[in-house]
Amino acid sequence: MREASTDGKRLLKVLRREPVDRTPLWLMRQAGRYLPEYRAVRAEAGSFLDLCYTPDFAEEVTLQPIRRYGFDAAILFSDILVVPDALGQPVAFKEGEGPVLEPIRNAAELATLKPVSALRDKLAPVYETVRRLKNSLPAETALIGFAGAPWTVATYMVGGRGSPDQAMAKAWAYRAPDEFQKLIDLLVAATVEHLSAQVEAGAEVLQLFDTWAGSLPELSFERFALKPMIEIRAALKVRFPDLPVIGFPRGAGPMTVEYFRATGLDALSLDTGMSPVWARDNLQGAGCLQGNLDPLLLVAGGAEMQQQVLHILDTLGHGPFIFNLGHGIVPQTPPDHVAALVEIVREWRP
Amino acid sequence: MREASTDGKRLLKVLRREPVDRTPLWLMRQAGRYLPEYRAVRAEAGSFLDLCYTPDFAEEVTLQPIRRYGFDAAILFSDILVVPDALGQPVAFKEGEGPVLEPIRNAAELATLKPVSALRDKLAPVYETVRRLKNSLPAETALIGFAGAPWTVATYMVGGRGSPDQAMAKAWAYRAPDEFQKLIDLLVAATVEHLSAQVEAGAEVLQLFDTWAGSLPELSFERFALKPMIEIRAALKVRFPDLPVIGFPRGAGPMTVEYFRATGLDALSLDTGMSPVWARDNLQGAGCLQGNLDPLLLVAGGAEMQQQVLHILDTLGHGPFIFNLGHGIVPQTPPDHVAALVEIVREWRP
Repeated sequence: MREASTDGKRLLKVLRREPVDRTPLWLMRQAGRYLPEYRAVRAEAGSFLDLCYTPDFAEEVTLQPIRRYGFDAAILFSDILVVPDALGQPVAFKEGEGPVLEPIRNAAELATLKPVSALRDKLAPVYETVRRLKNSLPAETALIGFAGAPWTVATYMVGGRGSPDQAMAKAWAYRAPDEFQKLIDLLVAATVEHLSAQVEAGAEVLQLFDTWAGSLPELSFERFALKPMIEIRAALKVRFPDLPVIGFPRGAGPMTVEYFRATGLDALSLDTGMSPVWARDNLQGAGCLQGNLDPLLLVAGGAEMQQQVLHILDTLGHGPFIFNLGHGIVPQTPPDHVAALVEIVREWRP
Repeated sequence: MREASTDGKRLLKVLRREPVDRTPLWLMRQAGRYLPEYRAVRAEAGSFLDLCYTPDFAEEVTLQPIRRYGFDAAILFSDILVVPDALGQPVAFKEGEGPVLEPIRNAAELATLKPVSALRDKLAPVYETVRRLKNSLPAETALIGFAGAPWTVATYMVGGRGSPDQAMAKAWAYRAPDEFQKLIDLLVAATVEHLSAQVEAGAEVLQLFDTWAGSLPELSFERFALKPMIEIRAALKVRFPDLPVIGFPRGAGPMTVEYFRATGLDALSLDTGMSPVWARDNLQGAGCLQGNLDPLLLVAGGAEMQQQVLHILDTLGHGPFIFNLGHGIVPQTPPDHVAALVEIVREWRP
């Protein structure tokens, strides 16, 4: 049954392919370091994970960009690595270095992880944040929950940190694919559990981030990126038949066609390098698209940003479409440029 | 007029879409740190650029992988950054850091560069290496010259080093596109000159590496990646009508279709993430393809490598095709795995 209160939310309407008065808009990492009010809370919170695990702080920073810009959706402030953290692989965020984990690189180390049932306890503060947001968000703002896709989360768990080529995760996946599959299977189950808890707490839409999908060769993409997403989508469909799910297989290029078709996702987020023209002609018929302004155009602002925003809107805005970036907003983004972007998108009409 | 001596070279035949007895094979960065004999010469040479600029050394390391594996092509040992170095923006290669340059970020700094006519003097040792290779290579081995594409070279010139997001080059390109265009125009002219000198010295095929093409949004890709390549291809066609040119717009995904069509390149090198199935159906009709084994599969070796090599061959080997990697070979590659790969490719038949 559809709740009456969600009927007016543009983001949910467009995900159901219903007509909307204007193109809905939110930005990946819209709560973040580019906002002075975020930096203030971050300084108070202590570590980055303390921020994620303290509902007072996490709720506040999730709301900040909504207050400032009135985006059509808020995305829970959290991190894709809370899942390994909850599975007993502690994550530390070091300034200027990104996340650091004690790597897991074989079956014996994998066996030291906790079962999926450990998630709900450890991540209770995250779900509490969702519950609070459900009440504190404006009625017209949709609430997005999220998780990392198994392959992308695995690259951090195996690598112990971010890497440009995902060499450690690939080393395991290529040397012993059936053993590596066990890590992926664990992550499929953990992701479904983590996302389900967010929906039960009030998330209305989910997004799955597969940041490193595009680095996999075709056969490995099918096994470690596509298949887990089919399983996650199917499991969520059983539990929440009407819940819309957005996928983001970054860099997957032409393979996104099969990814969209085979998963039955409701929407696909496009990365910066994806051609809007090709996406319109080859993907939009299968569902809603989202994207894909270069975050560095938002840093630059001005005429070039405006021209490229309009190219995206003119190309994709006539079908089911959510305006967004092609990757997360970067810290050096001037908040004024975000305001200018919001203005352009709000004023555009098909 | 076609020289009789080139008639037997598999690589040239397949680029002319003539039948070959087996799939030709070479590997990007086949001369490199994974070979002990390379490391010995590298230690003797001093700096990385000394290696590039000393014909005795550069010739030797170019020949090493040919002696060991009998690849169907040798690629001149050099670097894409010899072009800025020759234009008066000195490049240093720091151990573990990669290339470092004093960045050029505005019109005034751009004006300090030397004219394109400076290239032939500064890069005379590079062309001398090509001349020597022409004589020292086995009769069946094609000689490939190369350059970086203007956008990719510009990202280093503006950034001062490699960067994961090309933020500095994009900052300039987005803030003042017409000013940034002057850098691109200079690089188009310099690239044509550098490649022409290599052909005059004996290079039989050229490859252009556009490593960072895929990070550009559609409109910027058209202006700063596609258009310069159209200009370079056209200029080379006038000077050397029969010369085959291979493009490598890494990460460009579906935009490679237009890239292949509009440039009229003879062959396209596919990156690791590109679907061979899609490439066969959407690109191979327009010319020869090359690629695209994950270099990390070559590190892993074994059954998984074999399976994925056969997937590429079975999918693309029935049309005009050159087997290669999807990106450069990495230092931790066991030389034995390269031998195993050569064996699989040599034994495969359509």
